Amino acid sequence: MARERRNRRRRGGDQGVDNRPKAPAFIKRKIPHFEILDEEALQTIEGNAETILEEIGIDFLEDPESIEIFKEAGADIKGERVHFPRGMCREIIQKTAPREFTQHARNPARSVVIGGNNLVLVPAYGPPFVHDLDNGRRYATIEDFRNFVKLAYMSDNLHHSGGTVCEPVDLPVNKRHYDMVYSHIKYSDKAFMGSVTHPMRAQDSVDMAKIVFGDEFVDQNCVMVNLINANSPMTFDATMLGALKVYARNNQATMVSPFIVAGAMSPVSAAGVAAQSFAEGLAGMTLVQLLRPGAPMIYGNFVSSMSMQSGAPTFGSPEAGQVMNIGGALARRLGVPFRSGGGFTSSKLPDAQAAYEAANTLNATLMAGVNFALHTAGWLEGGLAMGYEKFVMDADQAGMIRIMAEGVDMSENGQAMSALREVGPGQHFLGCEHTQANFKTAFYMSNVSDNNSYEQWVEDGSQDTATRANARFKEMLAAYQAPELDPAIDEALLAFMEQRKASFPDSNI
Amino acid sequence: MARERRNRRRRGGDQGVDNRPKAPAFIKRKIPHFEILDEEALQTIEGNAETILEEIGIDFLEDPESIEIFKEAGADIKGERVHFPRGMCREIIQKTAPREFTQHARNPARSVVIGGNNLVLVPAYGPPFVHDLDNGRRYATIEDFRNFVKLAYMSDNLHHSGGTVCEPVDLPVNKRHYDMVYSHIKYSDKAFMGSVTHPMRAQDSVDMAKIVFGDEFVDQNCVMVNLINANSPMTFDATMLGALKVYARNNQATMVSPFIVAGAMSPVSAAGVAAQSFAEGLAGMTLVQLLRPGAPMIYGNFVSSMSMQSGAPTFGSPEAGQVMNIGGALARRLGVPFRSGGGFTSSKLPDAQAAYEAANTLNATLMAGVNFALHTAGWLEGGLAMGYEKFVMDADQAGMIRIMAEGVDMSENGQAMSALREVGPGQHFLGCEHTQANFKTAFYMSNVSDNNSYEQWVEDGSQDTATRANARFKEMLAAYQAPELDPAIDEALLAFMEQRKASFPDSNI
Repeated sequence: MARERRNRRRRGGDQGVDNRPKAPAFIKRKIPHFEILDEEALQTIEGNAETILEEIGIDFLEDPESIEIFKEAGADIKGERVHFPRGMCREIIQKTAPREFTQHARNPARSVVIGGNNLVLVPAYGPPFVHDLDNGRRYATIEDFRNFVKLAYMSDNLHHSGGTVCEPVDLPVNKRHYDMVYSHIKYSDKAFMGSVTHPMRAQDSVDMAKIVFGDEFVDQNCVMVNLINANSPMTFDATMLGALKVYARNNQATMVSPFIVAGAMSPVSAAGVAAQSFAEGLAGMTLVQLLRPGAPMIYGNFVSSMSMQSGAPTFGSPEAGQVMNIGGALARRLGVPFRSGGGFTSSKLPDAQAAYEAANTLNATLMAGVNFALHTAGWLEGGLAMGYEKFVMDADQAGMIRIMAEGVDMSENGQAMSALREVGPGQHFLGCEHTQANFKTAFYMSNVSDNNSYEQWVEDGSQDTATRANARFKEMLAAYQAPELDPAIDEALLAFMEQRKASFPDSNI
Repeated sequence: MARERRNRRRRGGDQGVDNRPKAPAFIKRKIPHFEILDEEALQTIEGNAETILEEIGIDFLEDPESIEIFKEAGADIKGERVHFPRGMCREIIQKTAPREFTQHARNPARSVVIGGNNLVLVPAYGPPFVHDLDNGRRYATIEDFRNFVKLAYMSDNLHHSGGTVCEPVDLPVNKRHYDMVYSHIKYSDKAFMGSVTHPMRAQDSVDMAKIVFGDEFVDQNCVMVNLINANSPMTFDATMLGALKVYARNNQATMVSPFIVAGAMSPVSAAGVAAQSFAEGLAGMTLVQLLRPGAPMIYGNFVSSMSMQSGAPTFGSPEAGQVMNIGGALARRLGVPFRSGGGFTSSKLPDAQAAYEAANTLNATLMAGVNFALHTAGWLEGGLAMGYEKFVMDADQAGMIRIMAEGVDMSENGQAMSALREVGPGQHFLGCEHTQANFKTAFYMSNVSDNNSYEQWVEDGSQDTATRANARFKEMLAAYQAPELDPAIDEALLAFMEQRKASFPDSNI
């Protein structure tokens, strides 16, 4: 009986057979942003960023073309170092950068609006390892990659298929991007990210998108968001600049994201990190707008704090939360979408540390007004591992973030005065009309938490959360059904990949 | 070598042998509050609360004295139901209630200021069970009670000794309050809470406080905060009213806290719960001010959501976070300190669910502007169990909340432009002057998290967080040293308890 009740619940949730309303394609925020800094402090940090751009400068390495573009736009060039006159970057960006834009998914119902008051929650990106309770930690494969694409597809509260959801290390480095992009298209119909590890791979990603969406549509619309990391401090390298240029010229979104371990790649203090990250973002985004005015882009902010004992990066920390909050304010004032946050942790297991740190980061993400939250689900071990159990646990938390973001229902029904009048002092509300009418949608229903009595929980096997999440991800994968894909498109993609793969030798660099 | 490094770390932390600056006696908030509702919505809820007070009324059961007091103050009485004219409660409260007050600890350096921009983090309250990894869940004893008093005493980021940190069920119900109050005084020097389960036990608590602080000091100053729960919906019973009257007349703080499982004891919607809870709080706080104008008090707000499957209360939910946020705004507008939040969970284990839910609640606590966060550390299983591992994990999170509350350092040192100028593009900040000067205090240092590399973590035994927390609480208890207590006071307390215990028979009601 108890078992049956549990199983009934398990069949619900993301598999869409319960009565809960479907989550929307992305979150439309109705609550204010939380601003930890006042106007004066924000102006100070903006001023410091301008000082960094003007006085200290930003290096653009082994990329004479970018240097030339900046020079023509009015920057002061010293070798590979670019000094930007105060206000130059801001002016160029504000002239043409979109405040928000639509990233189209191949299923139009799954397209997302990035920027403004919208929040898009996205799987973690980049881990070379995967982790689950059955096998522990091991190198990721393309099979794992497909699994995470499927899990993201089935997770109502994740709005995006992500990018490198894990590194398929069983495939050659210089060809795995074909299978990654193909998997996003084949096994999901949500929006996805392209390859950035080489300009050629970026171009391949664009070409594959064109097969799906058509050449002209891709040129006029954003169908990919792409992660361009700065080499902090104050440096961009040729690889990232190459990918940036491909995507910008093809009108695909670039997410210019300084990646900073504070204390190593930036000063240790929040106001210092925030100014440096913003300066780096301004420089990169300026290049995007100079390459193709109006091209969609996102200011990204990835900051971790550092362990005092070991120098290791730490996650879910209050200091990182502060920098994220400042970054959000700076992006809004500049007028560009903001990427940050997610479900970070240093933990190696889907345990309490993982959850505290992920929840701290997710709550800070919501407060900061992040628009594109890469790394929302699955992240373990400082980003080195993608966790199967962690993924479904985080995706569950993503649903709670949505409720918070949607704010309080102040309608007459929400005020519930009829219920208070009907029930009165000392009585219970379980049977009243208002409760009956609202009960099913009143509270977010977790699909991994156990809220039963202790006795019931013991009868159910005394499982911890990770064990329940383990069963959950397996149930999801077993129930997975691929979205329809036009066979002509599928064939064209496979033919393109085959031809491209055959045209140059495998390599692991 | 690795072992030695870990042990070195373990000897640090709350035991005070490391170089970290000591945490302050309580948190002085420097960041704004987060307001999910605007002025109009808050006025609507305030208006609904007035409608509940006037039209529906509040029951004060088996307490003719309270009824008489309300009648004299102008309320409309119908049997045991009190109808308050619109604005009456607000007017009475705003005339005399303190916006903030000091609760004195027997060690003056540990006194806390409750209200205003201050945040006091307090252990969990009330669990009849305790839980640890070694023994699982079992009934709590006075030994457990003493252990949690000791752990709270040693936790820099908990500011208060709490009250019923667990129910010592090995002692008779009608006499255990002596040992509880004595334990708070003997084994800690932080501020504490008195007994509320019977007016006589409240008076005993006051009498014991007088032995410590002196009769006149207690009459003129707050030395105890006391939890008065309403029997929601819209009812106060004689036991709680009896305790409320004792404490109010003795000028000790009453925390008038509707305890609500939404859907059972209130409507299911956030705006409805908020109005009801506030109406109940207004009624109870009005009685306090009528009994002793100017007596310190706190508006309390305890709301859980409900599982749609089982009717069980659920914790760490977005809906409960919304109600908490509204409660904070209402308390500030009224001008009274606010109690809510903590580290709630329904989980039976110190696992990921426990941590997600606790972190969600703690983050919401900070955003809502809670002044007195009962239940910050230890809470498991919907409050039925006090967890040893959970306690140290939550106390660690409490330190992070402090960092967030203190805001961003915008001093010249915080801005770190000297570091940015010194280091420049492409270099690292590890050795620069600013990093060296600020490194030790720049980042919060957890004492239960593991941020080491995967390889180091495996070498250290592949422990999960709960296992590390298990070792941690044992180390703390082994290292515990009692604060000094004047032997004359100690003897007087013991003599009082002995005499009182002998004066009436044991009973378990």
